[in-house]
Amino acid sequence: MNAELAKLRTEKDAIGQCDLPEDALFGINTFRSVNNFAYVGERLRDYPNYVSWLIKIKWAAAITNGAHGKISTSKTDAIVAACKDIVADQAYEPFVVDMLEGAGGTSINMNINEVLANRALQLQGKCPGDYHLISPLDDVNHAQSTSDVLIAAMKLTLHDEIAQLVATLRMYSETFREQEARFDKILRIGRTCMQDALPVRVGQAFGGYAELVDRSASNLEGLQKSLNSLPLGATAIGTGLGAYPGYTDMVLSILRDFSNQPLVADKNFFDGIQNLDEFATLSAAVKTTGLAISKIANDFILLSSGPVGGLQEIRLEAKQTGSSMMPGKVNPVFAMGMVQAAFLVSGLDASIAPAVAAGQLDCNNYLPLIAYSSFKSIKILNSALNGFHENCVKTLEVLADQCESNLMRSTAVAPALKARIGYERTAELVNIAHSTGRTLMELVVERGLMSEGEVFCLLHRACSNK
Amino acid sequence: MNAELAKLRTEKDAIGQCDLPEDALFGINTFRSVNNFAYVGERLRDYPNYVSWLIKIKWAAAITNGAHGKISTSKTDAIVAACKDIVADQAYEPFVVDMLEGAGGTSINMNINEVLANRALQLQGKCPGDYHLISPLDDVNHAQSTSDVLIAAMKLTLHDEIAQLVATLRMYSETFREQEARFDKILRIGRTCMQDALPVRVGQAFGGYAELVDRSASNLEGLQKSLNSLPLGATAIGTGLGAYPGYTDMVLSILRDFSNQPLVADKNFFDGIQNLDEFATLSAAVKTTGLAISKIANDFILLSSGPVGGLQEIRLEAKQTGSSMMPGKVNPVFAMGMVQAAFLVSGLDASIAPAVAAGQLDCNNYLPLIAYSSFKSIKILNSALNGFHENCVKTLEVLADQCESNLMRSTAVAPALKARIGYERTAELVNIAHSTGRTLMELVVERGLMSEGEVFCLLHRACSNK
Amino acid sequence: MNAELAKLRTEKDAIGQCDLPEDALFGINTFRSVNNFAYVGERLRDYPNYVSWLIKIKWAAAITNGAHGKISTSKTDAIVAACKDIVADQAYEPFVVDMLEGAGGTSINMNINEVLANRALQLQGKCPGDYHLISPLDDVNHAQSTSDVLIAAMKLTLHDEIAQLVATLRMYSETFREQEARFDKILRIGRTCMQDALPVRVGQAFGGYAELVDRSASNLEGLQKSLNSLPLGATAIGTGLGAYPGYTDMVLSILRDFSNQPLVADKNFFDGIQNLDEFATLSAAVKTTGLAISKIANDFILLSSGPVGGLQEIRLEAKQTGSSMMPGKVNPVFAMGMVQAAFLVSGLDASIAPAVAAGQLDCNNYLPLIAYSSFKSIKILNSALNGFHENCVKTLEVLADQCESNLMRSTAVAPALKARIGYERTAELVNIAHSTGRTLMELVVERGLMSEGEVFCLLHRACSNK
Amino acid sequence: MNAELAKLRTEKDAIGQCDLPEDALFGINTFRSVNNFAYVGERLRDYPNYVSWLIKIKWAAAITNGAHGKISTSKTDAIVAACKDIVADQAYEPFVVDMLEGAGGTSINMNINEVLANRALQLQGKCPGDYHLISPLDDVNHAQSTSDVLIAAMKLTLHDEIAQLVATLRMYSETFREQEARFDKILRIGRTCMQDALPVRVGQAFGGYAELVDRSASNLEGLQKSLNSLPLGATAIGTGLGAYPGYTDMVLSILRDFSNQPLVADKNFFDGIQNLDEFATLSAAVKTTGLAISKIANDFILLSSGPVGGLQEIRLEAKQTGSSMMPGKVNPVFAMGMVQAAFLVSGLDASIAPAVAAGQLDCNNYLPLIAYSSFKSIKILNSALNGFHENCVKTLEVLADQCESNLMRSTAVAPALKARIGYERTAELVNIAHSTGRTLMELVVERGLMSEGEVFCLLHRACSNK
Repeated sequence: MNAELAKLRTEKDAIGQCDLPEDALFGINTFRSVNNFAYVGERLRDYPNYVSWLIKIKWAAAITNGAHGKISTSKTDAIVAACKDIVADQAYEPFVVDMLEGAGGTSINMNINEVLANRALQLQGKCPGDYHLISPLDDVNHAQSTSDVLIAAMKLTLHDEIAQLVATLRMYSETFREQEARFDKILRIGRTCMQDALPVRVGQAFGGYAELVDRSASNLEGLQKSLNSLPLGATAIGTGLGAYPGYTDMVLSILRDFSNQPLVADKNFFDGIQNLDEFATLSAAVKTTGLAISKIANDFILLSSGPVGGLQEIRLEAKQTGSSMMPGKVNPVFAMGMVQAAFLVSGLDASIAPAVAAGQLDCNNYLPLIAYSSFKSIKILNSALNGFHENCVKTLEVLADQCESNLMRSTAVAPALKARIGYERTAELVNIAHSTGRTLMELVVERGLMSEGEVFCLLHRACSNK
Repeated sequence: MNAELAKLRTEKDAIGQCDLPEDALFGINTFRSVNNFAYVGERLRDYPNYVSWLIKIKWAAAITNGAHGKISTSKTDAIVAACKDIVADQAYEPFVVDMLEGAGGTSINMNINEVLANRALQLQGKCPGDYHLISPLDDVNHAQSTSDVLIAAMKLTLHDEIAQLVATLRMYSETFREQEARFDKILRIGRTCMQDALPVRVGQAFGGYAELVDRSASNLEGLQKSLNSLPLGATAIGTGLGAYPGYTDMVLSILRDFSNQPLVADKNFFDGIQNLDEFATLSAAVKTTGLAISKIANDFILLSSGPVGGLQEIRLEAKQTGSSMMPGKVNPVFAMGMVQAAFLVSGLDASIAPAVAAGQLDCNNYLPLIAYSSFKSIKILNSALNGFHENCVKTLEVLADQCESNLMRSTAVAPALKARIGYERTAELVNIAHSTGRTLMELVVERGLMSEGEVFCLLHRACSNK
Repeated sequence: MNAELAKLRTEKDAIGQCDLPEDALFGINTFRSVNNFAYVGERLRDYPNYVSWLIKIKWAAAITNGAHGKISTSKTDAIVAACKDIVADQAYEPFVVDMLEGAGGTSINMNINEVLANRALQLQGKCPGDYHLISPLDDVNHAQSTSDVLIAAMKLTLHDEIAQLVATLRMYSETFREQEARFDKILRIGRTCMQDALPVRVGQAFGGYAELVDRSASNLEGLQKSLNSLPLGATAIGTGLGAYPGYTDMVLSILRDFSNQPLVADKNFFDGIQNLDEFATLSAAVKTTGLAISKIANDFILLSSGPVGGLQEIRLEAKQTGSSMMPGKVNPVFAMGMVQAAFLVSGLDASIAPAVAAGQLDCNNYLPLIAYSSFKSIKILNSALNGFHENCVKTLEVLADQCESNLMRSTAVAPALKARIGYERTAELVNIAHSTGRTLMELVVERGLMSEGEVFCLLHRACSNK
Repeated sequence: MNAELAKLRTEKDAIGQCDLPEDALFGINTFRSVNNFAYVGERLRDYPNYVSWLIKIKWAAAITNGAHGKISTSKTDAIVAACKDIVADQAYEPFVVDMLEGAGGTSINMNINEVLANRALQLQGKCPGDYHLISPLDDVNHAQSTSDVLIAAMKLTLHDEIAQLVATLRMYSETFREQEARFDKILRIGRTCMQDALPVRVGQAFGGYAELVDRSASNLEGLQKSLNSLPLGATAIGTGLGAYPGYTDMVLSILRDFSNQPLVADKNFFDGIQNLDEFATLSAAVKTTGLAISKIANDFILLSSGPVGGLQEIRLEAKQTGSSMMPGKVNPVFAMGMVQAAFLVSGLDASIAPAVAAGQLDCNNYLPLIAYSSFKSIKILNSALNGFHENCVKTLEVLADQCESNLMRSTAVAPALKARIGYERTAELVNIAHSTGRTLMELVVERGLMSEGEVFCLLHRACSNK
């Protein structure tokens, strides 16, 4: 906001007027909002995907308004050129309002309208601020309101962001399926309530993880569908005042091309404007995904604990030094990073549901918060998921010897043995093992009850009732 | 637990022994658990639908075990008879463990096993406690574990509870659709950010509500499908140790008959036992439903505020006296009850996701909490939804005169007028209205610009761009 | 509500009339509320401490009203006798309204007023319902309103409940301090990020636990003070309409005797009625206490994990059988019960803060929810804390041999050794230990670098920089 | 991280080596962390107050280490000079690690250590990377670990941030107290459950607000005390290994000078490192403050609703245009901004408590999350509080005529009238008022029962029982 001393232009609104740098692409409404709000300290431009969809909606609206004779061809062309230009160059610098501006997101819509109008004026060789030529409100915003434009842009943005999340999860699935096969031969103790329970094949747990991430991915994909329904044409409260017959159809048709998605109009525009429960539903799914993966991360933290005073059944790749005072220490940083990210995502979710419930009457005034928390949350989760996958999941090693020696020393093999050598003999061996510190395996082999191979075979079979 | 002084029997377990009333249907494990835990002060029997599904799973398992020769025909018949008997009479008194017993729900499974074994013994003329004849663990629990039985019973129970919730929501939808039509002719001020904005027809908002509840209902219905997939046969950790080929298929086939649902086995048993994210997903949907409806309740609180110092556009039925000190005061008790219920449901949801994430390794130890919070939450929500619908939604009246006189005095009509009589004349009339306290309607009619009917007609058309 | 067929009485209110059992102690307002609301399925009488404080406030008000000539001496005496009688016998059966009645708690106040009036009538040989003799509203409720009475009763109740929680925490402190001393000689691996880090004495961790519970207790005690400030005399919105000079002082003076607490009037009655943030603050402290203790419980779950495939450094008492399919398995049920309780307490807390924030204008309408969630939450936490202390904390054993042999095999001793035998020699021994599987202790002793006693001594000193 | 092509230096660690720009002030550990983590996309340097306290701790440690002969005087001087220099210039550019780095905050400590070492080297004319001269770990980090340094820096930072919050709240208090007096003469309807209830003076509500903010401020101040207790000298897990007698005392003495606060050492270092409940307590207080103020904001949204279809009893200053399609519309943007901020603060709080509970054994690994969420939350709240105060609270106008005419038309005056002219006459007038639409005031004056002045006087007195 360093207004250059030299050249200024003056803009007016219902409240008064103010001076702006002569060539500023934003206008008085943006300027006021920037002075009024800097709550999260993250600006509209820090969320480029959102900016791009806001612009593409304006772009589609301009074409539609032109085609219906609502604004002149030359204005249409100028606005469309400005949209193209800014998106192509990702010239998002002038989108400066805080993501958490005060109410309903009006300033966000204003910021977009003003920059497009001024850029259109510039491209036509006019000066920013010459709104009698191209008006941010009457031309760029024609047939639109903050409510319908922002909700639509949020949905389109989230569609993209969720797609990335889904792709990440599918990558996990592939890795886990491969590990399911790779670790299938290795036995370990299965634990319930953190107590030794039954034998399990290491691969089986990874198969379970694969199933979990696939389900998370499918859930998110299912929710993407709800994001294809947009309230464009509803204007401020759903009545469509300011829009016109044909507007919705044409705008959506253009956006279908932009998005390659089967976009449709909301079945009920009043619902579409007022009720933001779909964002709460989506956020809950994102949260649950984060927590589900953090369960896996916690398993890795436990299984890699040690090297001596822990389970030490897997080893995680060392990606950075783990201590400023204990040389050689390596921490499960990516697993713990994943857990932390999940906590944060969970917290951001907790900010969304009450905002959805707090909508009053004919529109929900807390759109900016819902947008911010949703976008931030997915960004964090996706970043953490990628880090965890690349640096921890993919490269972890199972310490097969440790897994199997633990198992053989434990009573988790007893239920399987029992089925073969009888309850009493098993109980007797368990007692001997406890008092001598020797393993059941050793005792069984020593007594000629079964060979080592037979025990393994028995245990592997005990891991599957098929 | 009033052990009668006279007749006692003694039971033993790995820890020691204890005395129970001779004819107690529960056994030592239940007894210990009751002494150990009384955390929420709500017992298993307080959730009869859950009890009934736990028993039906045992019932199906007994038939299956009998058919496969795993337990004798006479034991099978006795256990099945006990199941039938208890379910038929809803004789749930002996299911006394606290809903929040310590870990994994073992005691819940034990309580069911013990009562069934003892009731089976009784029906055969034997004494409770004669477990060498029919054993809670070796016979009733054969091929089962706490994990797979409880998860399956929770899913079957939730399927039913969600069905009730969906039915309630469909009832709302019908009411709102009827009100959409009934109130279609009445105009009111549409408000954004609680400020007068544009005209809207009262019916339109109710149409939006209808859409919202339909979507909530559909979401919940969609989630019911995930509840049809059960881990029966997975036993403790997914390996199926203790179960046998054929067990899962036959048990599910019997339960399909009991439930009339297309039940299937989990695709992956390790996932099915370890990952309880589906309960978190369901709970989030329940929470979002509660919050979405509480938005409607809040609208009613606002619209019925007054009678003088509020909006006073609707009137809610008086169902109880509203004040212990202000005679005649009537409060929006059902709307506020709905909001409170939604807060509580939302809180219970907040207890579930962390418990899902805190599962460690091969099973999730926090099943009892997840069951309790889920069941309690749906019970509260369903009760509140029914109360709100019956006593508030269905019977509310729209105060048409107040709605329309408010609208006519407001500038919310200006955008529509502008389109007809031009910007300048509208602006002039707005100023006159402000300075004289007269309505725009009066001024327009007085000046012969439009008749009263024409203004209404104009405004009605302004509420739809079709 | 089984109205006996034989004898009925009729009561009227502003809405109409209804028939009640002739001798029912509650009246029409209670009756309507019970028919209207059964949301949580827990009734006022299920919270006897709350009932008793509600009655004691009425009792103090009756004496005060009598002393100021606001109600006759005979009415005063009758009401006081009813209060005494009901509290003495804990005859709380007729307090039947649901804890989550609709708005502001009016029905709760009505239930108390009606039962007291009717019991007073009975004690005078009159019939319940003869309100022209003693009126629930004009007499029992004189100078009061729902708002001031309920808030005051909640605070008095919570004061007691918190006192119990504090006493429980002090008991923990004593146990932990004793264990700090008892386990002081035992060394174990200190772990950061679940990786072996440095030696620590087992007692030291218990000293840390003691400090934590003491801080939790002190925090809660500090908050109790805020509960001594009551809005009695504020009536509905803080203006005191209906009360009179002298009322507040005398009522508080009587309640000071009842409670033995230095009760005072709120500095500002408008604040006292409208702003319920103190309940949110208290609930947050209860939640944090629960989560803090659940950290300790989680430590015990980790440290007792095994017996083979876990850390196995402590052993928890077996209080119930741990598996329906794995004989001999014992689970950390009290530690896991504690964790579950903490999750639930945390969820109930999440229902309170939004209700506090949702207060509108001159009173907060969500008192019943705030009361319910607060009471339930503390009840659960206190029950879980007692169970965990009695059955797990107090009786746990440290497995000293396992602790020390783990430590000696680990590199956690290296930093201490390094200070004595130099970096290079330590590094060399660490390598040998890794490749041979022998412990550093063995190597150090074998090489004559230090005696076993010297190593222990060194490590003990490494646990304290004092 | 644009490593210049030309000049590079190589650094090594236990994992391997990497190339850095020759003059980079950070080192290999920072470099790895930046490559590993970019979760929240906000860097250490974005939290300058935190950076400055981290450096001041290093500064104090360097002086202490020097004074005890642990590092040479020249190293001490160089490190101190680097600290001074960087803090004086706020040269925080090289503090580039993500606020949410993986585990325990090791990278944050490393980043500080490396930059200080390299800056110290530079100031001595040496090259960054010459760690044999001044080592980030052996010298800068001497006697410290990540745990004790980060926890201490978080507490010192939060002390400052809370101080700002308290100052903001005290400013509110002053404003509200002034408004309490200024609006004392104006009567309005007091509402309970959003229904007309009793008369109240507008100033009284503002007095209640003042009390609320004072209590919030006092609570926060009370919690500041807990922030004065620091674990410096505890090193990684509380045993103090690596520190030495005298270290803690001297470091704290220096920091007392830096902070002007009575800093002390934690009573128990194990507790101080492991248990982060104090951060949860603080965060809960911040959340409750946000929600409490958002209750006030919501009151303003309600009271300023209209201008026609709402309560319209106060008017908020217009600070920006309220609609992109409805000219002249003004929204309560600062009140709604406040509510949004409170939702977000509440969400961030929800991320902290579970992280506190998830600490495992001897240190809590989720420090970075707790730091990030705490700092972000207070920053947002403080920004919102300032905006709301400056642009809304301070400048709001009460519309006295509207307040009083609403009151006179309502039955909220009836309880007061009743006391003067009797129940029956009041009831009769209420009926006439209802049927004719005239106000009770008019009817009372017309009938000569009281003068207008007497009615006002009566109502004013009804607002205070003193």
